[in-house]
Amino acid sequence: MTRRSKLKPKPITKPKTNGNGNKVLTMKGLSAKAKIFDILAGGKIAFLNTQEALENDIYPAYRGVLKKGNKEIVVMFDLTEDLVKKGEIGLFAEVEKELKAKEGEQIFIKHLERPASIDYIKKKLDGKELEDNQMKTIIKDLMNNRLSQVELAAFISAMYIRGLNDEETVSLSNSIVESGDVLKIHKTPILDKHCSGGVAGNRTTMLVVPIIAAAGCYIPKSSSRAITSAAGTADTMEVLAPVDIKMDELKEIVLKTKGAIVWGGGMNLAAADDKLIKIRHPLSLDPRGVMLASILSKKKAVQASHVIIDIPIGRGAKFEDMNVAKDLANDFIKIGKKLNMKIEALITDGSDPIGYGVGPALECKDVLEVLEGRGPYDLREKSCALAGKLLELSGKAKKGRGFDIAEQLINNEKALKKFREIIGAQGGNSKIKIDDLPIGEYIYQFRAPKSGRISHIDNKLISKIARAAGSPKDVGAGIVLHHEAGDKIRKDEVIFDIYTESESKMEFAIKALETYNPVELEKNVIKSIR
Amino acid sequence: MTRRSKLKPKPITKPKTNGNGNKVLTMKGLSAKAKIFDILAGGKIAFLNTQEALENDIYPAYRGVLKKGNKEIVVMFDLTEDLVKKGEIGLFAEVEKELKAKEGEQIFIKHLERPASIDYIKKKLDGKELEDNQMKTIIKDLMNNRLSQVELAAFISAMYIRGLNDEETVSLSNSIVESGDVLKIHKTPILDKHCSGGVAGNRTTMLVVPIIAAAGCYIPKSSSRAITSAAGTADTMEVLAPVDIKMDELKEIVLKTKGAIVWGGGMNLAAADDKLIKIRHPLSLDPRGVMLASILSKKKAVQASHVIIDIPIGRGAKFEDMNVAKDLANDFIKIGKKLNMKIEALITDGSDPIGYGVGPALECKDVLEVLEGRGPYDLREKSCALAGKLLELSGKAKKGRGFDIAEQLINNEKALKKFREIIGAQGGNSKIKIDDLPIGEYIYQFRAPKSGRISHIDNKLISKIARAAGSPKDVGAGIVLHHEAGDKIRKDEVIFDIYTESESKMEFAIKALETYNPVELEKNVIKSIR
Repeated sequence: MTRRSKLKPKPITKPKTNGNGNKVLTMKGLSAKAKIFDILAGGKIAFLNTQEALENDIYPAYRGVLKKGNKEIVVMFDLTEDLVKKGEIGLFAEVEKELKAKEGEQIFIKHLERPASIDYIKKKLDGKELEDNQMKTIIKDLMNNRLSQVELAAFISAMYIRGLNDEETVSLSNSIVESGDVLKIHKTPILDKHCSGGVAGNRTTMLVVPIIAAAGCYIPKSSSRAITSAAGTADTMEVLAPVDIKMDELKEIVLKTKGAIVWGGGMNLAAADDKLIKIRHPLSLDPRGVMLASILSKKKAVQASHVIIDIPIGRGAKFEDMNVAKDLANDFIKIGKKLNMKIEALITDGSDPIGYGVGPALECKDVLEVLEGRGPYDLREKSCALAGKLLELSGKAKKGRGFDIAEQLINNEKALKKFREIIGAQGGNSKIKIDDLPIGEYIYQFRAPKSGRISHIDNKLISKIARAAGSPKDVGAGIVLHHEAGDKIRKDEVIFDIYTESESKMEFAIKALETYNPVELEKNVIKSIR
Repeated sequence: MTRRSKLKPKPITKPKTNGNGNKVLTMKGLSAKAKIFDILAGGKIAFLNTQEALENDIYPAYRGVLKKGNKEIVVMFDLTEDLVKKGEIGLFAEVEKELKAKEGEQIFIKHLERPASIDYIKKKLDGKELEDNQMKTIIKDLMNNRLSQVELAAFISAMYIRGLNDEETVSLSNSIVESGDVLKIHKTPILDKHCSGGVAGNRTTMLVVPIIAAAGCYIPKSSSRAITSAAGTADTMEVLAPVDIKMDELKEIVLKTKGAIVWGGGMNLAAADDKLIKIRHPLSLDPRGVMLASILSKKKAVQASHVIIDIPIGRGAKFEDMNVAKDLANDFIKIGKKLNMKIEALITDGSDPIGYGVGPALECKDVLEVLEGRGPYDLREKSCALAGKLLELSGKAKKGRGFDIAEQLINNEKALKKFREIIGAQGGNSKIKIDDLPIGEYIYQFRAPKSGRISHIDNKLISKIARAAGSPKDVGAGIVLHHEAGDKIRKDEVIFDIYTESESKMEFAIKALETYNPVELEKNVIKSIR
């Protein structure tokens, strides 16, 4: 059968033979004049005149490429009727900065070609293993802003459900290391520690670092800020010294003092990890392999050779079950080995807060007191245990001798001296005294509503109340615990104090206290007292 | 042991007893003056002064609630240094419209509480089944803009990997129906059809609807626009009459003419589906249950009682494998039954394009020619087969008699008369003639590079070339096929014409033609001819 349309063809071009080329056609580009808007959009966003955009197959929330000179970045488009005319492109703050674009400059707009990563994400969704170069491509595209939130969420979901095998976890770790800068001090051993978190007041890093450095080992510690807790190590250290320190400075500091406590997010360390965390956070999607890669890539990026992992367990801690913690510990050790790091994991008691203070300045007070030979014994003991194990792991101390060496360095005030040295090197006041700490002026005493024995003080709830009090943003806000689980107390005895920097925050904190009820008193015991 | 801080507490409030309330604290709200910006952001976005936002724990890309009077909507925040001052909130076009906010009005800003849906999405990620009310909550939160792209992508990924069982598919279908408006004409039977797609030129809907309506049955057909194909039914019908028709109008039209062909996206029909498609599209994530729910919810929303599903299979079609098509057919029938719809699925030949024309106006030409008793026989036959089966399924025709009744309605021009009636009812020119169709002026003849037998004409590649020619936006652009697979042709004989509305688009289309090579000639046969 031959079909023939009734329309009379009017040829306009000479017939060409059919090519066999395999090139992919891209949409024709568009050039537009930059108009700068100072809106911080939380992402790379540009806007176009609605009519012009639609004529060029660009719709709201579509992604495309902007090009200026040799610099190309991927942006998302918003459309506007009036704010930019045809031939103009509105640039939000992030885009202006990254493209170094000036008002009136010509910007070239291209459609985004489908990144190869999308096929690899689909592959992982389909339950297949990703090869090393495929994982690297995904992380590279993530860094180049070529993957959307939707694509990244699918990637995280796929890893959550399908899991990552050891090779994939190692590939992901290495890809994350390569996504950022690496601290190169060319020393060995380099020690590091990590805590899986969840325990209020657990500020051991600020003691372990000076102890290790005082013992003569390198420990360039990058720490995080609080996300849901009352204070991260970076927030607490920041009361004493700047922590937003660039890689070059860090190198200088560490070569001088051997130790440092800085904010990981301030350097370009394991840069992809921050982007992945933003996707994992809303759904609390914490695929095991991604979590391991997230933590170990940061250790690898400071070229750590020996790492202690602190995994607190217990009611109200991040992990409640011993077997879960053991599994995690073994995974850390196994993946660490493949990444050429010697790892020891310590499962610790995380059932209630450590130290007295919860909140940046209040925790600083605990740390300084411990270094001065006083302060909460539990914080001192745990810090010496972690530092001691780290010294043993690296061969700096004989097996079984680490704790004593660590304690010695506190007793002879060498750790305190080292800590002041580190504070000074980071740009803080090395002579700071406890009375100088900016602790909140407003205090509320939480008294026992009845006599009894404290059976539980909940980490999560204590953190929530400290946050309601203003912590970590108000550095002087937080909680000071006067009792711990197991203590017998009488009606009206003070269990803890809440500190705030303003009266209105105190009202808010008291409301939180009434809501959350963080201290449990055992009724049986109360009866026997009466 | 009793811990006691050295700090002297200064009580500022009388001790309160510890409440047992279970209420959740929300952050303190913020009130700001509206400043309207006309930016169409592709989502609900508002912007705040950077300093004020950060003081209130609002970061770029965070979501929150805006409240004006009783109206609450969820928005995403952008931050700006200069464009709005403290105490002001910038509203983008979508937010202004939905909130009905005016310049200078006070808008109340609240933090967004974590929606329950997030737990249900997590549940699905963990491989557990969702209950009916849980699925409904997710779709409700989706509609209220309470779920982020990340959360929705995780939901789609979870459904893709974990699958949906029949009950979940039914819940999802019903939730989608409830998310939009429903066409209530209180008639029975109401017929409908669906095609799984992938075949170029396959414009059967525009024939089936007038045939069915001419036979006296109701068929309120909602169709889609092209996403990756050269033209959707809505794009093609739009050449003849408006298709962006509201629910009330549709009701009126259908009660008058029994049939209609409108754009589904223009009504608020199965509204959640459009939002889900936007998430599924980038990764081509098409979980079976979601696909079934997506299609069947639209049928249910027009209260269809009997539905024919056309599943074309073959090389280059959406489905290549017969067993996959059979599985899909059985799923449609099973889920349809649970939704009180009688469904019959027809597996059809989709290995090459149907009809002559590919592109909106060119396809209209085929449709009008068939209704006038001429035109491509394959389009005529397939349309009569689908219409006939639909008449049989609904009991309007005896078994085995449907095809003849449908063909009769074409032969006696009752279908043509009905089609013109529908065009008129929808607001088009009911007297339109084929010569009036706005077909592109520029024509390029694609001639056989050598003699032989056509072994394959690829649907996907033909669609790509038609799109490069400007289809569907340029309604006169596209392709007219003069041959089909199996035809013998001689060197330089015209295989198809490309039509465009401009010379530049033609250059682009020819480049696409050279790249994609959509026609395969068998060499063996060529040898035997020589």
